[in-house]
This record gives sequence, structure tokens and C-alpha cells, in this order.
Amino acid sequence: MKALAVDLGGTHATCALVEDRAILRTKLLTTEGTQGLAPVLPLMAETLGAILSESETEPSECAGLAFCFCGLVDHASARVVSTNAKYDDAPSLDLKDWCDKSLGVPFQIENDARVALLGEWYAGAARGFRDIVMMTLGTGIGGAAMIQGQLLRGKHAQAGCLGGHFPVLFNGRRCTCGAIGCAEAEAAGWSLPQVARGTSGFASSPLAQENSITFERLFHHAAAGDRVAVEVQERCLAVWGALTVALIHAYDPEVVVIGGGVMQSASAILPYLQDYVNRYPWTPWGKVSVRCAQLGNQAALLGAIPLLQENS
Amino acid sequence: MKALAVDLGGTHATCALVEDRAILRTKLLTTEGTQGLAPVLPLMAETLGAILSESETEPSECAGLAFCFCGLVDHASARVVSTNAKYDDAPSLDLKDWCDKSLGVPFQIENDARVALLGEWYAGAARGFRDIVMMTLGTGIGGAAMIQGQLLRGKHAQAGCLGGHFPVLFNGRRCTCGAIGCAEAEAAGWSLPQVARGTSGFASSPLAQENSITFERLFHHAAAGDRVAVEVQERCLAVWGALTVALIHAYDPEVVVIGGGVMQSASAILPYLQDYVNRYPWTPWGKVSVRCAQLGNQAALLGAIPLLQENS
Repeated sequence: MKALAVDLGGTHATCALVEDRAILRTKLLTTEGTQGLAPVLPLMAETLGAILSESETEPSECAGLAFCFCGLVDHASARVVSTNAKYDDAPSLDLKDWCDKSLGVPFQIENDARVALLGEWYAGAARGFRDIVMMTLGTGIGGAAMIQGQLLRGKHAQAGCLGGHFPVLFNGRRCTCGAIGCAEAEAAGWSLPQVARGTSGFASSPLAQENSITFERLFHHAAAGDRVAVEVQERCLAVWGALTVALIHAYDPEVVVIGGGVMQSASAILPYLQDYVNRYPWTPWGKVSVRCAQLGNQAALLGAIPLLQENS
Repeated sequence: MKALAVDLGGTHATCALVEDRAILRTKLLTTEGTQGLAPVLPLMAETLGAILSESETEPSECAGLAFCFCGLVDHASARVVSTNAKYDDAPSLDLKDWCDKSLGVPFQIENDARVALLGEWYAGAARGFRDIVMMTLGTGIGGAAMIQGQLLRGKHAQAGCLGGHFPVLFNGRRCTCGAIGCAEAEAAGWSLPQVARGTSGFASSPLAQENSITFERLFHHAAAGDRVAVEVQERCLAVWGALTVALIHAYDPEVVVIGGGVMQSASAILPYLQDYVNRYPWTPWGKVSVRCAQLGNQAALLGAIPLLQENS
């Protein structure tokens, strides 16, 4: 089965033709400098059309267009619910109508993290499971959950997506979401510099000499034995461990798949989290498996087929 | 519609006949001193039979027996999955067969917190909603979740029930469940004495004179202005606030129903939690309503009818 897919991120859109578990062709569109999503749509349709013709594929051969959006989406009504600053016009757009008129194929839209989970389930780290939590560690902490073979969505399209905003330190830092002590306010890309600077002895740590305090630099200095870096790393790992326990207790999965840019340092993270999960959560049935995501930024594109097939 | 119901707690079982949103007749069985559940079953069947005959009701008039069990239950296979020390033989019992042979009516079994949520949905504080989180504050913290009209269960029957075991203090106390910093390890009946004794100035607080440090005594001394009691109360409220945010972010509900024995002090708790929920969680669609449970220990019995009707 073939399908068209769009993975729309904050600064670019990847347009693709996929067939089962393979990506046949992709084209990248930049969306930087554009005001909203509407101005991007004509070029996006043209690009998808070019991919089809270059691949000698008719629209009728495609199961549809799977649109992966970087914000909250009401899948049932095929509408964007809310965005974070970028593509503010999206909730007002009838994307299904745009797809119908410009491509003439069935249309499904979903939050990108949910489609990435579908991709890892269909073609990646979670193959063979039906109860899955995905957690992406990056600038923020994202995620999604599948329970008994069904994506968890919830009344307002938020369920499963807000794991990064479970408070793990009830008296902690204020998060960008408004809540207090969220996991991503305590251990994610955007909060790491604050956490590091708040650590005793920071000024004399080599971390203080970095232009940009990233997890890559943190793990580098911790591996070299810097006391402050070790302390901050241990704190971040404990935050992620507690969050993983919360996600396991919330959604009852068999497997937790961890992705996101921070997992470039997977060797410093994955063994810790598997050990944490072996020791701490209450899972009388057995042990939850903790795995690295396998598909990287192709996960959402490879989730296109299962998204389009979901209720068929 | 009529139904039989059993609400099995740690020390007693309430046997009942219900009709729609009314409890027609109840009888209490003590289970203290018994070894497991099997020895209780003959008397339980006899008691349910007596309720039927005293009510001049035939078994055939009942939609079935709803069995509310104080542990993890696999609803689909009608088996108890695990228990906490009490009724250790329950996973080995074929309760559906017992019900069939002794009463001759359809049988459903479910975790008591899930059935209590069904009761509050059918006849209590959550009428009219389909997206509900229930949180019970007592010796421990229990709960359940309904998402888009369906009880959340999960692969191993744990989903929605373990809210009390979301870590809200990643470097906190060890919980009885094995995890670290769970909400109930930081603010529930069993952990409150430890939390209070660990508070600076405890020895000179009137709390130190109490034989038993309960939330009722805590709120009493806090209302009287004792500094230690105020500090502990504020900490517990903040823990429950953070947990409520986590539950909202996990399950995307419209309403959070709060029950349990601690809510005898609802006037000290409910306004705080509604204010917390108005301010902190990320719910761009609107505000989650926070409500007291209305049905107390009748909630599970009143959940019998919707449990028996669930998939019919």
C-alpha cells in the first residue's frame, strides 16, 4: 500500500511518498519566514503532486494523505486544535477540503508524536507490541501512548501527549506550560541551562565556559569527571526515571520507546532508565522494556500507513 | 433494571440489591479473621440469595452480579490479577463459575475504584460527563479514569488506577509500591505521620501530642494556627495539586471527582484544588471542574448497573 505523508515541523515540512514500511521519495519545504500555514499549502500540494509524478504513481494508488502536525489535533474532525505560536492560522483552515481539492485523496491529520508512535509500532522499536508509551527527549519532552492497540487521544486531543508536563517536583520550577515542576521544566533542553546554573559550584565547572549548555556537553563533562556535570546529569536521569515510572503507572505499557535529539547520548541514558524501570515501578505482571526509538525523524512518515488504515 | 452487587473491602463485604440509581437492600459480611476469599463465598452466595428472597426478586429479574474487588482485576477474563496481602487466593478462584452455580446470573468483576467512578458517573458527581478522573484520598491514594465514555483499563488492568503512584517528588520518599516520591508516599494517611515528624519544629507542635496523626487532626491544628500543622497542610495540598495536574495531563478529563475519607475535611481541600486547577494545568480548551464525590461508600454499589450494561 502507498500513501502520501507530510511531517510539518516548526521550520520545515517533509513531503513524502511511502509504501508499506519504506519511504520511496521525500522533498523538503522550508516554512521559515512564512506567516502561518495557509501560504505554504499551494507549494505543498504542488510538491506532493511532483513526488507522485516523479514516482509514476497515480493519486488513486494512494490510501490517502497523512498529515503530521506539530500541535494538538482533533483527529475525528480533522482540525488543528491549538498550536504553539507557529502556524496560528491552522485551527481556522479546512485542510481536509484543501487535500480533497488539490490532491483528491482521503485525508487524515494527527499530532506528530502520535504518528511517530504509530511509525515505531509499524516499522520500528515497538513492532509486535500493542501497549506502548513513547517519550521524546529534546528541547521539550513529548510523547504519545497506545493502549490495547488504540492510540490514546482523549476528549480534547491531549491524552498521552503531555507526559513532559507531568509534575515530578511538586515544588519545582515554573514550566512554560504554566504548571509547576513539570518533567520538562526540570530536565529538558530548554531548562537545562537554568538547572545547571542553579547547581552549587557551577561557576568553576567547565560547563560555565560553554557557549550553549546542551545535554551533549553535559554528558561530555560528566564523563570527564566534572563534579557539577555529574550532579546535574544524575539529577536529569532521576527526573527522567521518575517520569518513566509515572508514564508506566498512567498507561500500563509493555514497552517504553525513547527518542528525541537527547538520545544521541543514548549510552548515558538507556541503561540507567532500563535499570530504573526494573527496580521501581509497580508492575506485578513483569518488567517493562525500555528501548531507543529506531526511526529518528522518519518515524512520523512511516506512521502514515497505519494512521490511514487505523479505523478501516 | 435490577442487579446484585458485592463491594469487597479489606475487612468486610457489602452485599446489595440495586435498582437503577437506588440501593434497595444491603447486608454486611465481615471478612476479618478469614483466610482468603474462598471461605467467604458460600456465606456471600447465601446472603445474596437472602437479599433476593427478602426483596421478592427472582434472579432472572437481575442483570447480573457486579463484584467490586479491592485489587487489580482483569475485567475481560473476569479474573483477579493481584491483591495486596488480603484475599491472596483470589487470583486462583473462578468467581464467574461460583456465581453461575450459586446464583445463576451473569457475572462481572472489576476493581472497586473503577466501579466507584462508574457510580459517580451514573448517579453522582460526574453525571453528564464522559471524560472523568476520580481520585480518592485516604490511607492511600486511589483512582480511576474514564476517557470518551470508556473506562480506561490497559493491558495489565493497571491503567487509571495508579494515580497515587505518580512520582511528584522525584527525589522523595520510598513508597510502599517500590517507587520513589509517589504522591501517596508524600501526602496520604499512611505517610502523613512520617511527613509531619520530619517537619522542623514538630516536637513543639500540638501534633506531637496526638496519639494518631490524621488529616482531621492536621487540619484542626492548622486551622488553630499551629505553624507546623500549617506547613504540613500546605505541603500536602501542593502534592495533591501537582497530582491533579498530572492526572489532567495524563487523561484529558472534563471533571476530577475527589473522594475518600480525607474529604471529610473537604472545605480545607476542594477550594484549594479548584484554584490550583484553574491556574496551573495546560488546558487550552477551558477549565477542568473539581468536585467532591457524592456517593461515599455507596459509589461502587451504584456502579453495578453501568458495569453490567457496559458492553451491551
